[in-house]
Amino acid sequence: MSAPRFDLDDELLARAAWSRLAEPGDVNAGALIAALGPSRALHWLRVAHGDADTARRAIDALGERVPLLRAGPRVLSAAVARWGPRLTDLDPRRELRVLRSLGGVLVTPGTPRWPGGLDDLGASTPPCLWVRGDPALSDAVARSVALVGARASTAYGNHMAGDLAGGLVARDVTVVSGGAYGIDAAAHRGALLAGGTTIVLLAGGVDRAYPTGNADLLRTVVESGGSVLSEVPPGGAPSRWRFLQRNRLIAAVSRGTVVVEAAWRSGALSTANRAGELMRPVGAVPGPVTSMASAGCHRLLRDGAAVCVTDADEVVELIGEIGRDVAPSRGSEERPTDGLGPEERRVHDALPVRADAAPQMLAREAGLSEAEVRGALGTLELLGIAVRHGSGWRKADAHGRRHEDSDG
Amino acid sequence: MSAPRFDLDDELLARAAWSRLAEPGDVNAGALIAALGPSRALHWLRVAHGDADTARRAIDALGERVPLLRAGPRVLSAAVARWGPRLTDLDPRRELRVLRSLGGVLVTPGTPRWPGGLDDLGASTPPCLWVRGDPALSDAVARSVALVGARASTAYGNHMAGDLAGGLVARDVTVVSGGAYGIDAAAHRGALLAGGTTIVLLAGGVDRAYPTGNADLLRTVVESGGSVLSEVPPGGAPSRWRFLQRNRLIAAVSRGTVVVEAAWRSGALSTANRAGELMRPVGAVPGPVTSMASAGCHRLLRDGAAVCVTDADEVVELIGEIGRDVAPSRGSEERPTDGLGPEERRVHDALPVRADAAPQMLAREAGLSEAEVRGALGTLELLGIAVRHGSGWRKADAHGRRHEDSDG
Repeated sequence: MSAPRFDLDDELLARAAWSRLAEPGDVNAGALIAALGPSRALHWLRVAHGDADTARRAIDALGERVPLLRAGPRVLSAAVARWGPRLTDLDPRRELRVLRSLGGVLVTPGTPRWPGGLDDLGASTPPCLWVRGDPALSDAVARSVALVGARASTAYGNHMAGDLAGGLVARDVTVVSGGAYGIDAAAHRGALLAGGTTIVLLAGGVDRAYPTGNADLLRTVVESGGSVLSEVPPGGAPSRWRFLQRNRLIAAVSRGTVVVEAAWRSGALSTANRAGELMRPVGAVPGPVTSMASAGCHRLLRDGAAVCVTDADEVVELIGEIGRDVAPSRGSEERPTDGLGPEERRVHDALPVRADAAPQMLAREAGLSEAEVRGALGTLELLGIAVRHGSGWRKADAHGRRHEDSDG
Repeated sequence: MSAPRFDLDDELLARAAWSRLAEPGDVNAGALIAALGPSRALHWLRVAHGDADTARRAIDALGERVPLLRAGPRVLSAAVARWGPRLTDLDPRRELRVLRSLGGVLVTPGTPRWPGGLDDLGASTPPCLWVRGDPALSDAVARSVALVGARASTAYGNHMAGDLAGGLVARDVTVVSGGAYGIDAAAHRGALLAGGTTIVLLAGGVDRAYPTGNADLLRTVVESGGSVLSEVPPGGAPSRWRFLQRNRLIAAVSRGTVVVEAAWRSGALSTANRAGELMRPVGAVPGPVTSMASAGCHRLLRDGAAVCVTDADEVVELIGEIGRDVAPSRGSEERPTDGLGPEERRVHDALPVRADAAPQMLAREAGLSEAEVRGALGTLELLGIAVRHGSGWRKADAHGRRHEDSDG
């Protein structure tokens, strides 16, 4: 075991080191760090990665002292065998230098900037976040929605992503997404266009734009007061495993997740499922049944795994506190006949438009008694939707005026 | 009280008479007929519509004898005042002659042709149905779906209605709708085109095509072995009240109701609500959020009042018996990496395509121990998605062949 190139007792460096040693979502690493703290966990790993006898003693001792690590010696040995090879050449100071050269900082759990939603991940909470742009993540995600979806999006999906993002920004909601082509990019762009804050959660290191075609977009996010972040240190490649794990961060960091467009099999559905597991509300935007790019959204709706959302108000209602953010009712286009009871409605139905009818005739037409008809006519006259002409009655126009006789 | 023009004791004529006397959905008429039978109920009405003293005695006597009519004398008096005026000139034989001249028959409750689902309406069960075309309604609706929706439909909605109707016919399901323009007509036409049976439920009499523009369609339905029916006798006008009540019949007669396209306020939503009240399954077809013609469908989905349905299989699953009609799973496009565990997936991610990597390098790349990598490589080799080359490994193509080296 060569001497470490950095101060293991520096907790920040230790956390940065762990984000390099353990793959995203490693619950054994998470449990170890939670039990010992990142520095002591590193010290322990150096011993446990030593010769077999020392390792066994270290593992047995830990198992006794930390019942949280109920995984047992076998799982711990396997974990040490995973982390150990990466101890060679480990130097988080180098990666932090890269981050700082990009104007970034490391944000760690328990500090004011840390987005508390991530703590819901339990043992798979990342040891730290590598953040470019605004590091005040906690404030930014207090009201936030993840807009996620297919890379192979349609013009409809891009329109909806941009439209929802703009509407959310107007309602003071931060838009979170994954910086990919398609829905992700449309969501980030929509938020930027509306002058809002947006957060990009990458699967690889924040020093590399992935996909490279979105390099300009990521730069604009950082320059516009948003953030680009990752749990993987600079230099980390975005493997498929890391994409899946990145999706858990998107789900956990946001107040809710909305799938804008997704094929029947789509990574966006994994984000939705993770959000559901974390008890975060999940929305899905419907689309044409004839579009395969909406099949995943319809699948979520069918399975009852998502609420149907069609505009920014409904998305805000999805994540809002009960009674505070309720989507405005759409029953605005009121009709004069809206408040009528069944008898009044039937008399109104029976009223001629361009001739007059006596109550007796209206009674037979509407299937009501004459007394009921006379009562209803009184109400309709008050509402201005029926007018009397001698002993007869007819419908009135919207302004309470009688229609002209057809025969002059 | 003039002498009746027909034999009140003929139960068929009496039911036909009641369908003229009481407006659709009149629960007092339904309760009276259920309690006394249609003929005795008619006799009673003739007496109760007489002078005040006779009427009072008849009403009091009935209230004592039939506790089902818990409505009380006041409500009964009002009902008599509604039905009485229509006793004048009442002659159901005339209306039956019109029906028969159109080749139609009267179908009454309790007979083999009667669609039993209507009995779920309780006191608002219609006294009879005026039917043109095939009168064997019971058989036709045993497997049936109501496809309903907006008159102001879009090309998308018409396409979906026709497509679903054709798919349902191919699955031996009868398509029920209301014969209106738009979605209704597209559903009926789709069923006819697929050579299937379709049922048109009109709000007015079956002797008049409403809307007149669909006269050819209604004729074709009758000639193709389907049915056109109404609870209103020939000559009856389709008032707005009757449209609403007709919707309850569509909901009750079918095994389930699917709204294909509906504006935020649409009569189709009332059909869906009635179906829900009757514990019939309700489906809604999603559409573009940008289309107002789908807003009602999305409203049902948001309210949890409907299940999202996107094809005929899903509609059949909606109405099917559990375990019998299950929509086929779409996970057909299998990938060779589908069954992999997380470690195998990570090793596969880490494998180069056009170069070879040693297990030790793969371990560091994937964040796994060498032992885990060797185990995973064995599985991947067996699956034919990894190949060994000396001491190194790379991804194999879909046929288990190694990719060529990039440098030859």
